[in-house]
Amino acid sequence: MNIAVIGGSTCSKKNYQIAQQLGELIAEEGWTLICGGRSGVMEAACYGAKSKGGTTVGILPSFNGKDANPYVDIKIPTGLGYARNILVVRAADAVVAIAGHYGTLSEIAFSFNEEKPIIGINTWKIKGIIKVNSAKAAVARIKKLIATGGSR
Amino acid sequence: MNIAVIGGSTCSKKNYQIAQQLGELIAEEGWTLICGGRSGVMEAACYGAKSKGGTTVGILPSFNGKDANPYVDIKIPTGLGYARNILVVRAADAVVAIAGHYGTLSEIAFSFNEEKPIIGINTWKIKGIIKVNSAKAAVARIKKLIATGGSR
Amino acid sequence: MNIAVIGGSTCSKKNYQIAQQLGELIAEEGWTLICGGRSGVMEAACYGAKSKGGTTVGILPSFNGKDANPYVDIKIPTGLGYARNILVVRAADAVVAIAGHYGTLSEIAFSFNEEKPIIGINTWKIKGIIKVNSAKAAVARIKKLIATGGSR
Amino acid sequence: MNIAVIGGSTCSKKNYQIAQQLGELIAEEGWTLICGGRSGVMEAACYGAKSKGGTTVGILPSFNGKDANPYVDIKIPTGLGYARNILVVRAADAVVAIAGHYGTLSEIAFSFNEEKPIIGINTWKIKGIIKVNSAKAAVARIKKLIATGGSR
Repeated sequence: MNIAVIGGSTCSKKNYQIAQQLGELIAEEGWTLICGGRSGVMEAACYGAKSKGGTTVGILPSFNGKDANPYVDIKIPTGLGYARNILVVRAADAVVAIAGHYGTLSEIAFSFNEEKPIIGINTWKIKGIIKVNSAKAAVARIKKLIATGGSR
Repeated sequence: MNIAVIGGSTCSKKNYQIAQQLGELIAEEGWTLICGGRSGVMEAACYGAKSKGGTTVGILPSFNGKDANPYVDIKIPTGLGYARNILVVRAADAVVAIAGHYGTLSEIAFSFNEEKPIIGINTWKIKGIIKVNSAKAAVARIKKLIATGGSR
Repeated sequence: MNIAVIGGSTCSKKNYQIAQQLGELIAEEGWTLICGGRSGVMEAACYGAKSKGGTTVGILPSFNGKDANPYVDIKIPTGLGYARNILVVRAADAVVAIAGHYGTLSEIAFSFNEEKPIIGINTWKIKGIIKVNSAKAAVARIKKLIATGGSR
Repeated sequence: MNIAVIGGSTCSKKNYQIAQQLGELIAEEGWTLICGGRSGVMEAACYGAKSKGGTTVGILPSFNGKDANPYVDIKIPTGLGYARNILVVRAADAVVAIAGHYGTLSEIAFSFNEEKPIIGINTWKIKGIIKVNSAKAAVARIKKLIATGGSR
């Protein structure tokens, strides 16, 4: 199972902590963390996942991977700039958005296009997002989706 | 000048007429119409542009171009599915959104990512969109942007 | 019908002339010229096509389109760098390679991947290329392919 | 360090064994194996790497990842078809080609475009490829490239 965590490359302390906890829980479930590989929410999720022995993948905008945060295990530099956002979504079985700016909005929209379950915490108000209030609730929803065949 | 018109592959009669008029005005300015090449708002804009002797480009999701509406002059099949949305935005000097669903939302978001001016008519309420109420007003805003160097 | 002309951004005078003549013939057939939009073989083909009133499309590596040669009508900046090569091939019904370096080689290879007819003049020796010696012969082969349903 | 192993989705028994050994050696060096994730040479390399406790990444043409061989740890479905080939190359610090068909040829060509070191075993004869005769020799060349700063 690949779970994408999306969100801004800058974020509040509160959202950093939520993303970190989400990374921890993803690792504890044995899922692979997919993200855009950069700072902010992405870094927090990677940091959390690594602290619990998980595997982290960063699908990066750059050609050389130097934009990766230190907690990315598998760097996938794409040289595509923001176009790499769609690859983050396509690689995922489910997507969790935490806060975020326009880049996150494009990933939310692509989640609908690509028919991936999209869960949101403190993020853009877009109809269709499964809104939850914590990392724990997000993971519970993903497990429910798996049980009912709602993801790949 | 390339102007992208984005919007749903299905749309109301009212929005079809706005898109058609926008296509006409784009052609009259001598601009090239860029779109996703399909039905609905895209077809309406192409139809309008062709009625005034303009040039229309459809950047298509399919491999074979058979999904193009009949008013596309230049078919660019990409085989990329929804990932072609980012190419529509990157090819444009300015973007106008009319109504639209999640595909349009991804293009709106990418317009911010790629720093393209994005004008909206009856579309998603996203902060930063330049909101106008008619095709005529959209073209006036684009001309103002050009005059002030606000587009490529 | 979209015909892609591929080849180096630098080329010999002889190959420039062949590409120019190919552009002329493509325009005379009423076909649209697709290319990578830059200098060398691409410029020569665009120049030829424009001299006969044809339409030229440049699918460009840059974000801003400033790398286009002066004979490109429709600029499609992609921001994808060399990854735009596959879009040149996918947009084409048939591909003609003239000389060229590694970029051209990637387009030749993609033509096989994407099952597009690929005709070569003074280019890489790759099995499966339909080898001809002149622009005229290339166009004759494309017309034969169309007649027998060998292209889209 | 990401090392891409490229080659056909079908291959001879001999080339399968070379790819398997290459996978083993890549894992023993602590490098990450990047590949297209499918059968043939890709499967052999993944099988070898897993037998030595390595990590394997498959950048897949499909939307759903069902085309992955059983030895891929990290599945990256792209929905891009053959266009995913360029991502395999961009994600790599060095590329090793074993045998292969036109898909492999496109990856070889992209390796030159993207200025990645490209080593070949029983593959296309293309000028500029560093030709070697065994998996062991390929790894020796990569280590030499690293020592001299010839890769990322």
